[in-house]
Amino acid sequence: MASVDAILATKYPAKAHARRVAESLQARHGEAGVLYLEAQKTRFIEDNDETMPFRQRRPFFYLTGCLLPDASVAYDVKADQLTLFIPPIDADSVIWSGLPMSPEEAAKLYDVDRVLYTTDVNATLAAIAANQGGKAPIFAISEQVSEDVKLQGFSTTNLSVLKDIIGDARVVKDAYEVALLRRANEISAKAHIAVIKAAQAASNERELEGVFISACIANGCREQSYHPIFASGESGATLHYVSNDKPLIDSVTQQRKKNLLIDAGGEYQTYCADITRVIPLDGKFTLETRQIYEIVLEMQSQCIAVLKDGVKWDDVHALAHRIAIKGLLKLGILRGTEEELFEKRVSVAFFPHGLGHYLGMDTHDTGGYPNYADEDKMFRYLRVRGNLPAGSVITVEPGIYFCRFIIDPVLESPELGKYIDADVLERYWAVGGVRIEDNVHITKDGSDNLTSAPKALVEVESLAQ
Amino acid sequence: MASVDAILATKYPAKAHARRVAESLQARHGEAGVLYLEAQKTRFIEDNDETMPFRQRRPFFYLTGCLLPDASVAYDVKADQLTLFIPPIDADSVIWSGLPMSPEEAAKLYDVDRVLYTTDVNATLAAIAANQGGKAPIFAISEQVSEDVKLQGFSTTNLSVLKDIIGDARVVKDAYEVALLRRANEISAKAHIAVIKAAQAASNERELEGVFISACIANGCREQSYHPIFASGESGATLHYVSNDKPLIDSVTQQRKKNLLIDAGGEYQTYCADITRVIPLDGKFTLETRQIYEIVLEMQSQCIAVLKDGVKWDDVHALAHRIAIKGLLKLGILRGTEEELFEKRVSVAFFPHGLGHYLGMDTHDTGGYPNYADEDKMFRYLRVRGNLPAGSVITVEPGIYFCRFIIDPVLESPELGKYIDADVLERYWAVGGVRIEDNVHITKDGSDNLTSAPKALVEVESLAQ
Repeated sequence: MASVDAILATKYPAKAHARRVAESLQARHGEAGVLYLEAQKTRFIEDNDETMPFRQRRPFFYLTGCLLPDASVAYDVKADQLTLFIPPIDADSVIWSGLPMSPEEAAKLYDVDRVLYTTDVNATLAAIAANQGGKAPIFAISEQVSEDVKLQGFSTTNLSVLKDIIGDARVVKDAYEVALLRRANEISAKAHIAVIKAAQAASNERELEGVFISACIANGCREQSYHPIFASGESGATLHYVSNDKPLIDSVTQQRKKNLLIDAGGEYQTYCADITRVIPLDGKFTLETRQIYEIVLEMQSQCIAVLKDGVKWDDVHALAHRIAIKGLLKLGILRGTEEELFEKRVSVAFFPHGLGHYLGMDTHDTGGYPNYADEDKMFRYLRVRGNLPAGSVITVEPGIYFCRFIIDPVLESPELGKYIDADVLERYWAVGGVRIEDNVHITKDGSDNLTSAPKALVEVESLAQ
Repeated sequence: MASVDAILATKYPAKAHARRVAESLQARHGEAGVLYLEAQKTRFIEDNDETMPFRQRRPFFYLTGCLLPDASVAYDVKADQLTLFIPPIDADSVIWSGLPMSPEEAAKLYDVDRVLYTTDVNATLAAIAANQGGKAPIFAISEQVSEDVKLQGFSTTNLSVLKDIIGDARVVKDAYEVALLRRANEISAKAHIAVIKAAQAASNERELEGVFISACIANGCREQSYHPIFASGESGATLHYVSNDKPLIDSVTQQRKKNLLIDAGGEYQTYCADITRVIPLDGKFTLETRQIYEIVLEMQSQCIAVLKDGVKWDDVHALAHRIAIKGLLKLGILRGTEEELFEKRVSVAFFPHGLGHYLGMDTHDTGGYPNYADEDKMFRYLRVRGNLPAGSVITVEPGIYFCRFIIDPVLESPELGKYIDADVLERYWAVGGVRIEDNVHITKDGSDNLTSAPKALVEVESLAQ
């Protein structure tokens, strides 16, 4: 297998992506004709002369590998010609920003057949349309076509299907994309390790967030894949905790909190890492955290063990619940039989979210087709339904949480309250939540875990001391 | 003078701001009636379930001190009643995000007369309108009023003047705002010092950007005031350099670059620091950098020395040019008389931007009224024109740059080429650019420099070693 460095030294496979999308279009909608996509525009902050943070449009990047704003791309399927259009030189801006990329430089960087300026878009599209005698359809994405672009001279203009076609094509990653995801993971693992090492000396969550972001930027992940979570103590039970500004000393007990839940990953060239770890804040896990941690680690390892081409994700999610139930029964937090607890969905009170989601250029990547209206609460928040194809990359992120807003209604329920031992449970609130999340590449016969951030209890404790 | 901590322990003076805006409205447009403003909405990234980075709307913050998204505020001028509306509890989101702020908590935090839910906006506005017999006008900001909000029952609805009225009111800062700017500066100074100390060991600009951002986050500036600039070597001559990813070893000469220009500041509770420093990358400045640095420092200190209530900013900007001309004459880079060089605007080739801008909740704060169409190129990019009032806060950021895109056309000009000694100039390209920027509070008799980041040559060199 080629090394990550060797793969990333080649060009992003834009042309192969364009062909794959065109084939999928042809299979589903007949002739593919021409594809036209635009990059994100330079946009300004409201009432301000500063630009908004830039995030490249994913469909455009998929067909170009290009991070420039204000660019566009056209793929003439019949001629198999991929044309990148880059913004023309603006003399005024050269004084302030230096020379922009030239078409010659762009042609060397990107896997495209030619590079023109965006001022050439209309003439180029008109020429392609004329070449095909006006009989080819053009496909673009609704609300992502500039007003001054003319999609004329084509048999039809279809703005409704291309986004989903690309979204589906993105599910199966090629070697280059896996290398990008691996690089994002390598960098993010360094950042996680830096946080573990800094944990004992820190006095506020935000210091550790700073350590993480700094390590990401220093190693080439300029952006975070998503708003990171640095949740100490009971805040770890709040799934979407984002304030990351609490002191690590509990304001009521004046004692140092026990754990920090970190859900954070860097974005590398639009590809996302998404990693969750729980670490001790004073060098050692408490007994209760250790017990929960071991259950969650077991949920994760057993789930990863069954992954391979075609596995049904719903089944893997259910497997995680069964392991959680066994573990919580053993600790005495739950009461009853495994089967009864599973049928009554009692474990959902401790593991309320889905086991994982596709990962790629979006953290919650395309193609998962969840059913948030599912009446079965065990599966309502599962972001991928059905079978995982080889080549897909999925997060495996089981968790067990002690969240009063979720558990209290179950405790108070006449039907379900009996399944939870409130006295035993009392000892576990301080754990907050434990989630362990890795990014896994599905292969024909198994899987390949892209995440190397430490997670074994002894390794984490050893780094934390 | 109360300490920054003591001031910031009190409430943000939202009510005083509301009154100030109302008075200004009355003075300029007759009766003020009712003011209505909305916070920034929670917005999602295109084709994504992640929220966009949140940046509070400044007019809303000015009248509330509140950082919540999706809130709004109404000020009934006659009743002198300021009402904050916060988003209602969404039961589903409590499970994921915990309990949101309650009206009781908000009432304790913010300097407002009452707190209601945003679901009460229409009824509240209707009641205010009715109380005033339908005779009061309502003022809001165009495109910043939600579709479901009904501005009815008022004598007129004016969406065109409130933004500028607030923008003008923001020019003069009160003690609380100055304390916020001072805190942003204190935190940013820590971050600048951390960068100076890390400079010798770093191998890429982005490592030092990471150090800066980390120190800001750790100390409470979660956001950067603007996209930071970490420009090594000749990149320091590119005024809007933003890639921050170049190695600190020059790719051609294989030698370590000499300087790093850092233009970066943290945002504290919406208030911005904006600080530029130039530091050596291997512990000591070169002779050429030192020479340019001393001129720029002299430009800054003489300009700050003349600041006081009512000073004309255009004059201070011209003063900076005169000092630059004297310094560049002394080095032999320029030839001719000071007067001739000033009249011919030759120094604009070395100092092409304005001396500074107002600073507050925006980095380029409101109320400056620049004239980018000015035919006099010395003043075209000056972001504040006219007299500075006591209470305003302005950046003082002179610079001297060796930018080929800007200097080459002057060198080649038949009229102006003779004023530059190309041979002497040759030694200075490696300096890149030197800019030194502080944030200065204008007072009745002088000024107060809010920026404590080190800038004396010996101090910077001592920290860098």
